[in-house]
Amino acid sequence: MIYADNAATTRMSDAALETFCSLQKEMWGNPSSLYAHGQRAKEVLEQAREEVAAVIGADPREIIFTAGGSEADNQAIRSAAALGKKQGKLHILSSAFEHHAVLHTLDQLKKEGFEVTLLDVHEDGLVRPEEVAAAIRDDTCLVTIMYANNEIGTIQPIAEIGAICRGKNVLFHTDAVQAVGHLPIDVHAQNIDLLSASAHKFHGPKGVGFLYARKGIRLTSLIAGGAQERGKRAGTENVPGIAAMATALKEANANLSANAAHLVQMRDRLIAGLSKIPHGALNGDAVRRLPGNVNFCFEGIEGESLLLLLDDKGIAASSGSACTSGSLDPSHVLLAIGRVHDVAHGSLRLSLGEDVTETEVDEIIAAVTDVVAYLRGFSPIWRDLMTGKKEFIL
Amino acid sequence: MIYADNAATTRMSDAALETFCSLQKEMWGNPSSLYAHGQRAKEVLEQAREEVAAVIGADPREIIFTAGGSEADNQAIRSAAALGKKQGKLHILSSAFEHHAVLHTLDQLKKEGFEVTLLDVHEDGLVRPEEVAAAIRDDTCLVTIMYANNEIGTIQPIAEIGAICRGKNVLFHTDAVQAVGHLPIDVHAQNIDLLSASAHKFHGPKGVGFLYARKGIRLTSLIAGGAQERGKRAGTENVPGIAAMATALKEANANLSANAAHLVQMRDRLIAGLSKIPHGALNGDAVRRLPGNVNFCFEGIEGESLLLLLDDKGIAASSGSACTSGSLDPSHVLLAIGRVHDVAHGSLRLSLGEDVTETEVDEIIAAVTDVVAYLRGFSPIWRDLMTGKKEFIL
Repeated sequence: MIYADNAATTRMSDAALETFCSLQKEMWGNPSSLYAHGQRAKEVLEQAREEVAAVIGADPREIIFTAGGSEADNQAIRSAAALGKKQGKLHILSSAFEHHAVLHTLDQLKKEGFEVTLLDVHEDGLVRPEEVAAAIRDDTCLVTIMYANNEIGTIQPIAEIGAICRGKNVLFHTDAVQAVGHLPIDVHAQNIDLLSASAHKFHGPKGVGFLYARKGIRLTSLIAGGAQERGKRAGTENVPGIAAMATALKEANANLSANAAHLVQMRDRLIAGLSKIPHGALNGDAVRRLPGNVNFCFEGIEGESLLLLLDDKGIAASSGSACTSGSLDPSHVLLAIGRVHDVAHGSLRLSLGEDVTETEVDEIIAAVTDVVAYLRGFSPIWRDLMTGKKEFIL
Repeated sequence: MIYADNAATTRMSDAALETFCSLQKEMWGNPSSLYAHGQRAKEVLEQAREEVAAVIGADPREIIFTAGGSEADNQAIRSAAALGKKQGKLHILSSAFEHHAVLHTLDQLKKEGFEVTLLDVHEDGLVRPEEVAAAIRDDTCLVTIMYANNEIGTIQPIAEIGAICRGKNVLFHTDAVQAVGHLPIDVHAQNIDLLSASAHKFHGPKGVGFLYARKGIRLTSLIAGGAQERGKRAGTENVPGIAAMATALKEANANLSANAAHLVQMRDRLIAGLSKIPHGALNGDAVRRLPGNVNFCFEGIEGESLLLLLDDKGIAASSGSACTSGSLDPSHVLLAIGRVHDVAHGSLRLSLGEDVTETEVDEIIAAVTDVVAYLRGFSPIWRDLMTGKKEFIL
């Protein structure tokens, strides 16, 4: 199998799995327990917190461990909203192509009296800082803009948006689920107040993530109960999973530049190869995108059929977010960057792993080229396009 | 180490760890993905759901996977409250010695306009079904009573309470975190509508749990985002962790009677031995308690010192709930069954593992006897008791 869906999930690294298993065997105590066996687990937990914090330039006390990126997004946004409410600030600014963990939380807040502005995303898949600045109001309590988009991989000008928010004294959250472990992050230099991450996107375990919250920002707890995580997240800490996340993150961070350099080469080779398919187009900016992300639309075909045929050829890919697969609606991300319904339906996301080879990239190019041609062979839309009944868009 | 704190957390079983590791190596796909690698993960997920459901007599569609027992408690109670609110029923009935995941959620609901009645717990650590029946009002939307108490291990008359609730058409939730994998459960026979469980309490991994919700009960989502778990819990499913939980639960359930028979013997031996220490007393009913749970109060000493000295002797024990350790307040559970502050401070919980031996039990008895005597040797309260300045309670 050529696994080209690393944006959906990654394989746990050997080092991370080794951390998990050895802790599960030896250091499985409850970190809240007073005896040595518990206190050793507590030390492992706090060391993981230091390691995670160090990677993003934060203080360990600014890190809360969660069960994943979605929980961290929910908690970050709900916390900022609660703080806003206290000050009578009920406006939140975001973008139209955020992850559903952000958009659906904002939908809930709308029902609770908040007003939400979703900025348009340009055709290049980028949010414009000046548009953020213009849209911030006196009653804006939060700006939440993702670091890198989970479907088209475009990297937002986070530091500039952060500086604008800081200048206007508005909290800035970034869903960095696709960025952590893949792009350099410095929460201070980038003026990030709240940041969400998920371990299984950087070769850590599933069911583990973290939320960074700048010192002084009072978090709202989503899960009430015990006093774990300084009272901000009840439930016995998943110490082996958290430590495995730290191992994976340290590893990813140590190899960040080397991985990115290789992936950019592979990505650009893949983009060049797929660009030769007629009536297709890359989604999102060709340069300001995640090193391993390629996302195309091909006219006249269905993304789902494309995936199933690629799967037959041993290639694991996606039409967009795994979280919404099975849904018949076209991707809200592709609609946000201006793709029309028909075109958005024919989307393909290829998110490469760090160990991908040139040969594998060439295999992907050949397979996609074949499968697109094959599917077009009996697509009624393609026939309409070819006979001029419909006009080509791409 | 003699590990006698299995109510705080358990060691992951070899079979559960093997399930986790092999899946993490081979079956790590995202279960929402359409390709075979993802669909295989989906099959593993659904098989785990069937296995978990079978153990408690539920339908697989009635099981939602969560990140642990606290999350499941929060979601169960918030869901019932939301349903109650729609019908104008704003009263919730619970007991004074529930876990904080329940009590703190109820505290939040009080701020949101709900009225909460906490039933007294009798000296034997048992809630009386007739008192539940008498306290249910026309506007009661939920009764939430734990299956087995996490500190004193007393087993509540769940089936009788369930029958009363069903008869009065009130939802019944039970926090079964200490019961699942240790006591037989049949959600239909016991008329349970909602039930919470945590994997790491029955030799599964930390950070994984489940919520059973009877068909037709509409759950409220705590985490908004992707459509996982039928839209009731966003976030990529922790398939290896969930499958490891199912392995551990099947194992625990297969050995339920044998484990219980052995543990009851060991427990009763331990109770008999510790009962010889003067001015001490067992907390909670001697028979209607978890097979492995022993909880004593000893007059004139501090539980924390007792734990630390037992730790020096290689025995891992607890004064009560690990979730609140570090807190200076005496256990709310012990206060609920009528222990006064001074006595409640001198508490010791010993929760035995299934592999505990007679020799280990005898070692625990000897160690506790020694340490209690030693601590009393320089306890000012003990001196006051011995000189008659204070009166013995126990």
